[in-house]
Amino acid sequence: MNIILADQDEIDNGRVILEGERADHVVKVLRAKENDTVRFGVLDGEMGKGRIVAIKRKYPRRVELVVELTDPMGPLPRVDLVVAMARPIMMRRILSQATALGVGTFHIIHANRVEKSFWEASMLEQESFYDFLIQGLEQSVDTRMPEVIFHRRFKPFVEDVIPTIADQYSHMLVGHPGGECSLSESINEEPDRILLAVGPEGGWVDYEVDKFREAGFVPFTIGRRILKVDTAVVALHARISQICGE
Amino acid sequence: MNIILADQDEIDNGRVILEGERADHVVKVLRAKENDTVRFGVLDGEMGKGRIVAIKRKYPRRVELVVELTDPMGPLPRVDLVVAMARPIMMRRILSQATALGVGTFHIIHANRVEKSFWEASMLEQESFYDFLIQGLEQSVDTRMPEVIFHRRFKPFVEDVIPTIADQYSHMLVGHPGGECSLSESINEEPDRILLAVGPEGGWVDYEVDKFREAGFVPFTIGRRILKVDTAVVALHARISQICGE
Repeated sequence: MNIILADQDEIDNGRVILEGERADHVVKVLRAKENDTVRFGVLDGEMGKGRIVAIKRKYPRRVELVVELTDPMGPLPRVDLVVAMARPIMMRRILSQATALGVGTFHIIHANRVEKSFWEASMLEQESFYDFLIQGLEQSVDTRMPEVIFHRRFKPFVEDVIPTIADQYSHMLVGHPGGECSLSESINEEPDRILLAVGPEGGWVDYEVDKFREAGFVPFTIGRRILKVDTAVVALHARISQICGE
Repeated sequence: MNIILADQDEIDNGRVILEGERADHVVKVLRAKENDTVRFGVLDGEMGKGRIVAIKRKYPRRVELVVELTDPMGPLPRVDLVVAMARPIMMRRILSQATALGVGTFHIIHANRVEKSFWEASMLEQESFYDFLIQGLEQSVDTRMPEVIFHRRFKPFVEDVIPTIADQYSHMLVGHPGGECSLSESINEEPDRILLAVGPEGGWVDYEVDKFREAGFVPFTIGRRILKVDTAVVALHARISQICGE
């Protein structure tokens, strides 16, 4: 937790009261005391600092902050991510790590090699994945919550949804071991926003790559090594950021 | 497990007998039957395929392969990694993911923000981290085992060890939020092999960055976001690979 985050409606007259995990963090990890300041941000809002004006150390722990918001919310990240639904522990790592790297919108989609049971898991409930997005923001010192959209059917996503959002992107790229070009070849002109699609364990099937291609995506490869999905998401996001000079 | 790996001395007259995890994988995940072939490789040796000539499905499960080795071991990876000792679960993720991306040698070192207790954990026993390296090779279809060297004291590592290995590298880089330049600025001439140093949770202290600089490392930054160590290792390795055109 490199920043303490709160909802706007938790702030009352410039003050916020923390309990639970956030209070534990201030007391036990930061070992902060009265008058110390901590990094503080408002979800989907400004960042700044919070000065501790009261600490109740015994259970239930409580920390009261007076907040001062001095910095605007960071810019919209350059990358939006299309990722196949995965098992909950993998989904958690994907969401928290990709949020830490910066993602505007997650499109979580079905694919041939996604087990149906993954869709039944608790991940689908907003309360459950919301926590992982927050972890990513707390790690990377950001306040901008990514949007998360679930698409339970592959074909309507590529045929109907993609055409409605395609004009937001300078590049739409799909990672695929049999891709026609390298990443640097596929980002062949000045990049603006990029939609990156990363497949499930076992990869996309040929039909899916064809549908992505028809929808305007360029299939690219980063070489012969097969990566786990969470490793691939981080590695591809990092390579795109490197090409874009970020 | 995208390739079945075995030690050279498990192969007897072109045949190898698998038990335990590898036999389970062939039977339960690959659902292979007699005469099917699977990807097979010899640790620190060639790759090819194994034809299943016998399966005993009941416990204890056994699979017998006739192996045909057709492809040489992959090239030495371009990146060697200096990483601060971490807690076991984090060390596991670092070792398996970085091995999957390709690392020649891991130097696991002490640093100011490394808890002493991490050095007591079982990770230090070769049997325990060996498994994570194997997982990385099995994931990425590689046979070349990385070397792992532990350095329990920071200063002797940078002052005495680095000078003996520095001439193997075209670039020695240390990730640091206050770094003077971007990664692309720091890899300013034709890269050959690269030694990358990634700090502990909380980062390097100034003294450590100074010692790295004195030893010939260039401190670089990839921006304002703070990443977990495992995310940072993958992201920095990926960015270096992108710059090197891999």
